[in-house]
Amino acid sequence: MQAQSVMASDLVSRLGGVLNGSDISVHRCASLANAEHDCISFAVGQKYRKAALESGAGALIVRERDISLAEGKTAIVVADDPLVYFARVLGILHPAPPAAAGIHPAASVSPEARLHPSVSIAANVVIEPGVVVDAGCAIGAGSYIGRNAHISAGCVIHQRVTVCSDSRIGERCVLHPGAVIGSDGFGNAWAGDHWEKIPQIGRVIIGNDVEIGANTTIDRGALDDTVIADNVRIDNLVQIAHNVSIGRHTAIAGCVGIAGSTHIGAGCLIGGGCGISGHLQITDRVTLLGGTVVLTDILSSGVYGSGLPAIEQSTWRRNTVHWRNLDEMAKRVRSLEKTSNTMREAGSNKK
Amino acid sequence: MQAQSVMASDLVSRLGGVLNGSDISVHRCASLANAEHDCISFAVGQKYRKAALESGAGALIVRERDISLAEGKTAIVVADDPLVYFARVLGILHPAPPAAAGIHPAASVSPEARLHPSVSIAANVVIEPGVVVDAGCAIGAGSYIGRNAHISAGCVIHQRVTVCSDSRIGERCVLHPGAVIGSDGFGNAWAGDHWEKIPQIGRVIIGNDVEIGANTTIDRGALDDTVIADNVRIDNLVQIAHNVSIGRHTAIAGCVGIAGSTHIGAGCLIGGGCGISGHLQITDRVTLLGGTVVLTDILSSGVYGSGLPAIEQSTWRRNTVHWRNLDEMAKRVRSLEKTSNTMREAGSNKK
Amino acid sequence: MQAQSVMASDLVSRLGGVLNGSDISVHRCASLANAEHDCISFAVGQKYRKAALESGAGALIVRERDISLAEGKTAIVVADDPLVYFARVLGILHPAPPAAAGIHPAASVSPEARLHPSVSIAANVVIEPGVVVDAGCAIGAGSYIGRNAHISAGCVIHQRVTVCSDSRIGERCVLHPGAVIGSDGFGNAWAGDHWEKIPQIGRVIIGNDVEIGANTTIDRGALDDTVIADNVRIDNLVQIAHNVSIGRHTAIAGCVGIAGSTHIGAGCLIGGGCGISGHLQITDRVTLLGGTVVLTDILSSGVYGSGLPAIEQSTWRRNTVHWRNLDEMAKRVRSLEKTSNTMREAGSNKK
Repeated sequence: MQAQSVMASDLVSRLGGVLNGSDISVHRCASLANAEHDCISFAVGQKYRKAALESGAGALIVRERDISLAEGKTAIVVADDPLVYFARVLGILHPAPPAAAGIHPAASVSPEARLHPSVSIAANVVIEPGVVVDAGCAIGAGSYIGRNAHISAGCVIHQRVTVCSDSRIGERCVLHPGAVIGSDGFGNAWAGDHWEKIPQIGRVIIGNDVEIGANTTIDRGALDDTVIADNVRIDNLVQIAHNVSIGRHTAIAGCVGIAGSTHIGAGCLIGGGCGISGHLQITDRVTLLGGTVVLTDILSSGVYGSGLPAIEQSTWRRNTVHWRNLDEMAKRVRSLEKTSNTMREAGSNKK
Repeated sequence: MQAQSVMASDLVSRLGGVLNGSDISVHRCASLANAEHDCISFAVGQKYRKAALESGAGALIVRERDISLAEGKTAIVVADDPLVYFARVLGILHPAPPAAAGIHPAASVSPEARLHPSVSIAANVVIEPGVVVDAGCAIGAGSYIGRNAHISAGCVIHQRVTVCSDSRIGERCVLHPGAVIGSDGFGNAWAGDHWEKIPQIGRVIIGNDVEIGANTTIDRGALDDTVIADNVRIDNLVQIAHNVSIGRHTAIAGCVGIAGSTHIGAGCLIGGGCGISGHLQITDRVTLLGGTVVLTDILSSGVYGSGLPAIEQSTWRRNTVHWRNLDEMAKRVRSLEKTSNTMREAGSNKK
Repeated sequence: MQAQSVMASDLVSRLGGVLNGSDISVHRCASLANAEHDCISFAVGQKYRKAALESGAGALIVRERDISLAEGKTAIVVADDPLVYFARVLGILHPAPPAAAGIHPAASVSPEARLHPSVSIAANVVIEPGVVVDAGCAIGAGSYIGRNAHISAGCVIHQRVTVCSDSRIGERCVLHPGAVIGSDGFGNAWAGDHWEKIPQIGRVIIGNDVEIGANTTIDRGALDDTVIADNVRIDNLVQIAHNVSIGRHTAIAGCVGIAGSTHIGAGCLIGGGCGISGHLQITDRVTLLGGTVVLTDILSSGVYGSGLPAIEQSTWRRNTVHWRNLDEMAKRVRSLEKTSNTMREAGSNKK
């Protein structure tokens, strides 16, 4: 992306913090390893000491207590939270190219849709009747917005996203390519000799400032709605089934599956590849380590895991046999304990 | 979706069952919790007693034996299977909006394709030469139908679906947004110093009344075909590799992966997040609990699991260490048993 | 796909190997089970003896040492590696239909993009300013190529692929339908009371001869790049997070997730459904069995697993309880060992 250029002192006047050393012009954000003199980078904690000292960055963002990491740098920006500060510098130096307002001639927009004049609609976008798109939204090439969906102000919908009928997307959401919002939930009734589809008439309701990853799928509710609260962050290839609700600020890494009607609290961190069964309650501030399988409610905040770490094949093979026979091993331990107790008692009796 | 309105007595004359109480007009299907007086809902089993009695639903569908759940409701519909009955009421009160027959001007349809006059082809659909689309099909915006594919009567192909060349889709199938049918299988031959692609020339053959979820992928066969039998139900983000076959009525929840050449029987229920290795045989009526890994054939019907439940981090950490050393623990138990036997024998000898 | 027709002797003159028996014309590649007399098939190893002898194939490719498998076949092609040989025969007999050079009138190609005259651009493709597409590339219907992306010579980009801005795709790569290359990495900074997006300004750099499966997602780097080396093979529904690097010839099966900043070596084989944590180092020539969870570095080449095999539900239920209590069981074994030692010593003292 095209970089701008800015003085370090300008950053401090816009974002706060304190400038030590000399003022310089920075053109680019960069990692410590790849920063050159016209770059700004950041470092948090002494484990980055070596990388920071060796970095070619002209400007470095550090905490007060980490100031020694910035030794020798031309411009030193002292901030409370260098990562958050750096994220904002990125937004200044590397803004997303603005999407041109207007409707691309190759888009198909229903005359019964209501689009704010400031919106940007790319080629091959399809917008159905009853859709509302509020101010400042950009909808990327090939995306589809179904009947009566509402896209609130400031959303960025990237390429080839599907937003199905009746979905509501809050303000400033970002939907990445290939995401599908509001597809039918997996509702099937067994009618004696075949499955019958249970029509899915709920909606997907997404709050403000939510980000949804590439090729992630969020199903509409069966009767009631699937609800994603404000500021939830969802990575790529995540499946969220019908009638799930997810609380504010919860972040969900890639390849997670959440089955139907499960409620996840606020401030949770769900690691990559976790699987969560249906109809469960996960309370607030639960962290799940990567690869965790959740089969029952989690009612206390805390950190949970279940994934087994990789081990060398021959050990793995033997251990999986023991896993199959774990109940038998437990019985053998119990039996040993009985024998041991009997013998100890026998021993005591002899005394 | 737009709701119709219908008398409870009309439902009974169309769908069977018996109407108790008074006849009323119902406008909407709803969950017990959110039903108002113009709504119809359903309840099965005494665990829904409280919710049913507190529900504002004007009409309730129950089994004969659950009739007490409907106490106080205006209209009581007694049916053998309330869920199936309710699914059908949903179809009556909340029909999918009919897709207009005809070909959208922004679609690209090959003159060498054969489309029944009743089909509905949305904007940006691409249909290649040799394709056949039978009566009553609707193909959603941005979908692609490859060379010589055959879409049988009554299919609903939602938005941005890819049906690759030579695929055959049976009657009344539903394909959700982003699904990919007939992409190349993962076939690679190691040629001493590099991978060479093994061209994939099989097809995907899908039976009647199959539903395939959003962003699910089903690969074409390498030489022979990948086969999905009638009335199979597949959820979102499922991967089905080349030459897999899946028997009738099997239902597969989200995030499942099935590796190449595995054969899954009829009437199976595959829970979310399961992974099934390649070249396996899974017999009929096998249920896999969520998160199960299948590495060997399953030749007896029944319920199987392997997912470990989440536990608190510190316990998890200790237990994973024991997991690494499970073989050693087994040896120690064996050694204790030997010692114990020797001592018991020694004890007996003394007597 | 349309098959050509070729003499067995022609195959040998083009691909090497030795022809035994009579020369015949072959029209089609087929599996042993479904081959007819005009077909060519292959067999490697005595476990295919019965299938090979019963096969109706007119021509069979075998190794010298497996020549007895071809008894009775009209044409016998002896080759060092029958699978590689067969892969090449597939390319000859079943070539992909050539994409017509030229730009479909329903494509939207920026005048500021640079396309080689030989490229084929299908309907509804969108190509942004600054894109370069080199000789012989085919871009399938509905695909999107973002600003300044570079597609090198000979690539096949199938339908509905998204290649985001600044991505570089090497020569002869194949991208399957629905793949997303270069979407934003999952970068969030906690700003005290809400998540703030960390703009992602790295790129995705893909080498030559790489294949990427349907609906797979590869995120752009945060600051530096995400890098996929030459001849890597990636199956469907794989998630590769920001700043991952993957070494040459590594093959990754379906449903794998690789978290941010992990480096995977060359020549690795990653089985289906594996999950690999972030910031790890996996050395060269590591094989991960299907369903393996990797939570720590793997610094020695070899084969690793962690997936537990499916077991019958009642045993599974008991074993998961033991899993929860594994630490307690370990303590009980230790306690038994102590008692046992004490008693043995007591026994010795008596002597």
